Amino acid sequence: MITQENQDKIFLKQAIALAVENVKTKQGGPFGAIIVKDNQVIATGTNIVTQSNDPSAHAEISAIRNACKKLNTFHLEDCTLYSSCEPCPMCLGAIYWAHIKRLIFAADKTQAAEAGFDDSFIYKEIELPYNKRKIDTLHCHEMEGNAPFEAWIASENKITY
Amino acid sequence: MITQENQDKIFLKQAIALAVENVKTKQGGPFGAIIVKDNQVIATGTNIVTQSNDPSAHAEISAIRNACKKLNTFHLEDCTLYSSCEPCPMCLGAIYWAHIKRLIFAADKTQAAEAGFDDSFIYKEIELPYNKRKIDTLHCHEMEGNAPFEAWIASENKITY
Repeated sequence: MITQENQDKIFLKQAIALAVENVKTKQGGPFGAIIVKDNQVIATGTNIVTQSNDPSAHAEISAIRNACKKLNTFHLEDCTLYSSCEPCPMCLGAIYWAHIKRLIFAADKTQAAEAGFDDSFIYKEIELPYNKRKIDTLHCHEMEGNAPFEAWIASENKITY
Repeated sequence: MITQENQDKIFLKQAIALAVENVKTKQGGPFGAIIVKDNQVIATGTNIVTQSNDPSAHAEISAIRNACKKLNTFHLEDCTLYSSCEPCPMCLGAIYWAHIKRLIFAADKTQAAEAGFDDSFIYKEIELPYNKRKIDTLHCHEMEGNAPFEAWIASENKITY
């Protein structure tokens, strides 16, 4: 009988292999991800930022988009995401929004940083007050920022997510 | 002469109007964003998570993808992003990866949470150690997680990003 631990390792190996292949075939950065449901691979994704001109097209988000398209849903409740590397804050956010159940990764953010993929600065930026961040940030609280939420609350038969 | 502050308010108003319109036309959640370069609107985006079955299709990421497609690039260095609401960690990450220069928003995350869009839990989760997070997280450090990075470092003529 294959244990969950061994099953996890098999899928994680596939995610790592996808990442290596992505580099060797010049498709993009060294990252790969796989989404699994009921021990079946639903979708895969690799980093395709440069080929698709999409800075959000990291491996995890690509895999989430592919899995959602395949399952015709915007939630992946019973799915596991296997990633060759620890997700950056953008991808971790997407993983939460997609309601993914389990997250398994191999390399961590320190290894990614050593290879030139330093997302630790984003983790640090998130914790800073707006005026201390590297990006010039302005919170215009005097604007009608609540209007969209008021429209949303008043809206009937809306699709929540 | 129009000051930068007034110009900012004009664009931010457009982002808010897009968000309201997105709700009223049942296109998705109450969020809108605009990307501006040299005081020209390059692209807009709204939340289209439910209509596109893409949990990453928040207003900011939609706008970034549209702007990158239009400018045929994966970096938006001299651009300002105007958003009806403070970006969630996913979108903030995308904003950093896209190298956007300025970020201006109206509502903040507290207002979003009051309307039922609580991304504060993601901000909190990011700061927790893996074993304290709500998502079942496993770091398999014994796997060959460094192999993709080794392939990347050895790869010649690669497109960095």
